[in-house]
Amino acid sequence: MDLKAYLEERRALVNRALEAYLPRVRGPAFRVVEAMHYSLMAGGKRLRPILCLAAAEAVEGNPQEALPVACALEMIHTYSLIHDDLPAMDDDDLRRGRPTCHKQYDEATAILAGDGLLTEAFRLLGALASHFQDREAVLLEIIELVGAAAGYQGMVGGQMLDLQAEGRKITLKELETIHRLKTGALLTVSLRAGALVGGGSRVDVAHLTGFGEKFGLAFQITDDLLDVEGQASDMGKEPGMDARRQKATYPAILGPEQARQWARRLVEEAVEELEGFGDQAQPLREIARYLLVRRS
Amino acid sequence: MDLKAYLEERRALVNRALEAYLPRVRGPAFRVVEAMHYSLMAGGKRLRPILCLAAAEAVEGNPQEALPVACALEMIHTYSLIHDDLPAMDDDDLRRGRPTCHKQYDEATAILAGDGLLTEAFRLLGALASHFQDREAVLLEIIELVGAAAGYQGMVGGQMLDLQAEGRKITLKELETIHRLKTGALLTVSLRAGALVGGGSRVDVAHLTGFGEKFGLAFQITDDLLDVEGQASDMGKEPGMDARRQKATYPAILGPEQARQWARRLVEEAVEELEGFGDQAQPLREIARYLLVRRS
Repeated sequence: MDLKAYLEERRALVNRALEAYLPRVRGPAFRVVEAMHYSLMAGGKRLRPILCLAAAEAVEGNPQEALPVACALEMIHTYSLIHDDLPAMDDDDLRRGRPTCHKQYDEATAILAGDGLLTEAFRLLGALASHFQDREAVLLEIIELVGAAAGYQGMVGGQMLDLQAEGRKITLKELETIHRLKTGALLTVSLRAGALVGGGSRVDVAHLTGFGEKFGLAFQITDDLLDVEGQASDMGKEPGMDARRQKATYPAILGPEQARQWARRLVEEAVEELEGFGDQAQPLREIARYLLVRRS
Repeated sequence: MDLKAYLEERRALVNRALEAYLPRVRGPAFRVVEAMHYSLMAGGKRLRPILCLAAAEAVEGNPQEALPVACALEMIHTYSLIHDDLPAMDDDDLRRGRPTCHKQYDEATAILAGDGLLTEAFRLLGALASHFQDREAVLLEIIELVGAAAGYQGMVGGQMLDLQAEGRKITLKELETIHRLKTGALLTVSLRAGALVGGGSRVDVAHLTGFGEKFGLAFQITDDLLDVEGQASDMGKEPGMDARRQKATYPAILGPEQARQWARRLVEEAVEELEGFGDQAQPLREIARYLLVRRS
């Protein structure tokens, strides 16, 4: 399969849907909607929604049905980027090659834009009731799982740990916990939610969850490697930031070569989770292998 | 009825439930859970959850069933206070008589604690699936309504408008829009959600929604009056802050006497919405009338 064409097509699909779900309507609080739109449509990879759609596909579901859930996940991801970039957090000026939300607007607007995207994600999920007729319990399960993955037991907790670890020496095990919570949880729930929407069996859902866990860790390791070795022109942000901030990373703890080897093994293990799946899981296999050669 | 005893009892009920829903478990991201707990258990009036329970009661539902929904609403209210108090927003040092979350912890932790409470509220709602067996669509409707009331079409939008209005002359109509979004939407949805959980008819739900809209506005007017006339010892925060910030308020625009008269009329209209309800709506009537004599 042509992975590049597949990713492009899915990204375009997700972008069209996101535009529809967050219209830039004129209204009293237009400024915050503008800011939400600015960050949401800043042109990310759309990895979480694409994984969600691919997981629905992998269990022979209709990816179109998973599209609103996929969009809610991207809203949550974008909110987390906006808040993580704030001066009180990572204090970043650039994101996806453009000024961060608080640089483009101001801090208060950025906080509210993040809050607005997080809230809108859950509103959107609740509003899907009519799409899930006779399957409402599945939708509620997704809402619960997404809440757990995004909240203090997941992403919020991971960001807290990450901040607490800055400038301090941490162990490999601590680093793994941070990333399992900070990025792994939302990546994993993207696959799990997609599999649930697609009508996967409990066994299928468990395998896709396992895929997500391994994929999530491999993603983070290759992200850290990019920060060491990547090019600003490919990444849309400055490389070398982790080192400048004395942030613990996999290459820093393990050395780049061993980190790369570990990522390779994790990708293999992720792909093994898909052994029982047929051709319809091919996109997931390819996306996992792509991690090892990605440049952004 | 003894309103004071009723409010005490309901407050205690809500506080016990909140403690159970947000246990201070030791875990990797303990600091953010501590901060969430600090703000959530700082001893507010619990107005939104009490209104939610009272609305369930008013339609002859079991208030106990509405308790987790009521707790989710209080989590959302608390998150909004934490974020509104941030230096980039209203920059407040005191809340409910104690240091605000970012003063007690730090700014990053406060942002995350707010994010964590907002997310946990929706996770909790999703997790109620088993309590709503065969009524899952009602729960999803509540999630959608709460999301709309809390997000950019509601509370988040209202806070944006409020910030944009600071130091600027605004009309009475603009002030009403700000408060309808900023405080009215969440108060109203508390009643609406309670009525839905309680199994109220569409007509009942509409009347309780109408009650909420009038109550919400009356609440804001009396809140503004308290800021002019209240005592710090009763309020747990400094009065006179609105004037010092040149914030538009009802007493400032209308004069205190006319503002008080308007609040009185709104309370009457709110109570009229409950005409078709029996004794079981008495707590709501009393709570509305109490607005006119409250001291905190």
